[in-house]
Amino acid sequence: MAEVKLFGCWYSPYSRRVEMALKLKGVEYEYIEEDLSNKSPLLLKYNPIHKKVPVLLHNGKPIAESSIIIEYIDETWEGPSILPKDPYERAMARFWVKFIDEKCAVGMLKACTSSGEEGEKAKKEAAQLIQFLEEELKGKKFFGGDNIGLVDISANFIGYWFGIIQELKGQELLTKEKFPNFCEWVNEYVNNKFIKENLPLKDKMIEILKAFL
Amino acid sequence: MAEVKLFGCWYSPYSRRVEMALKLKGVEYEYIEEDLSNKSPLLLKYNPIHKKVPVLLHNGKPIAESSIIIEYIDETWEGPSILPKDPYERAMARFWVKFIDEKCAVGMLKACTSSGEEGEKAKKEAAQLIQFLEEELKGKKFFGGDNIGLVDISANFIGYWFGIIQELKGQELLTKEKFPNFCEWVNEYVNNKFIKENLPLKDKMIEILKAFL
Repeated sequence: MAEVKLFGCWYSPYSRRVEMALKLKGVEYEYIEEDLSNKSPLLLKYNPIHKKVPVLLHNGKPIAESSIIIEYIDETWEGPSILPKDPYERAMARFWVKFIDEKCAVGMLKACTSSGEEGEKAKKEAAQLIQFLEEELKGKKFFGGDNIGLVDISANFIGYWFGIIQELKGQELLTKEKFPNFCEWVNEYVNNKFIKENLPLKDKMIEILKAFL
Repeated sequence: MAEVKLFGCWYSPYSRRVEMALKLKGVEYEYIEEDLSNKSPLLLKYNPIHKKVPVLLHNGKPIAESSIIIEYIDETWEGPSILPKDPYERAMARFWVKFIDEKCAVGMLKACTSSGEEGEKAKKEAAQLIQFLEEELKGKKFFGGDNIGLVDISANFIGYWFGIIQELKGQELLTKEKFPNFCEWVNEYVNNKFIKENLPLKDKMIEILKAFL
């Protein structure tokens, strides 16, 4: 049995985060693609509470929830640090991940998929959220500074998935005029060699997203 | 200026978590009580995104979000470990905290405050969630084993606040017959000397909860 297995789904940003973390550390792993409409008995066994991907299996022991898996990977394997070493910087990285997951991703998706008065309200609220990231990115190439770090890996939905959704819905929430730092980060992000190699192809993403939106 | 300041609110379970973590570590701090209906300019300055308690200020640098603050405290000060040392055990502790915060607390509150068909459905769902904790607590005194740890500190809402809410609403979601391990944990928890000293008084809690429920 492979020491490390990952139960994932190619179009899930959460699953991709874990793949990025494993690859950043240079950890070899067996990847098991899950059909989310017909989940495998193993996935349900290893994640009986949430029944979701990703699940990392290390020496037979399962871990669920992408943010928790990434910290485990960072603490378990040698290689480039994913979280900052300094406790305060680490707390700040965790803060931004939580903010992106619980506020930004939800707010930006809502702004792109709702219309009328509700849509206008959602757009204003999403713009306020992005403004916090805009300020955080001032003078920085990545959230992690010069290099990709925890926040960048975790921001893959707003850095890549969201751009495709925005295009499909004909929306323009993110513009260079309003959010120059954030748009520059998106540009650096999707063109970064490491990130690019670990994102799903745009054409395939469009196909799958059309079924969801 | 004191090295460590905590902006909190006496009846907030999130605020109390941080106080417990600081006290477990023996960290001296200045406590600043916030009036949540009239938040101080300092709280808004230090937590401009969420505008919530708790906020920890360490050497002038602010940290928000109780779970992030607790990890910072554990990483910064010597003393008894709040998180387990082993990376897998640490991942499991983080998993349960996330589960308690995002699923249990929300589900248990809904089960106690909704009625009719919706209430019945919420009760069934909450019972399924508690069953996972029931199994996790099998053969254990605390979530952390023999001693109070991260999960126990973070479970203060379901261990104390919820019992008072249940009583006020005349509900009986948690019974010894259905959840013997969980009820035994609640009993150990509220009677533990350290926890007891760091929980708000029941009479005062009833007064404040009546205004919310």
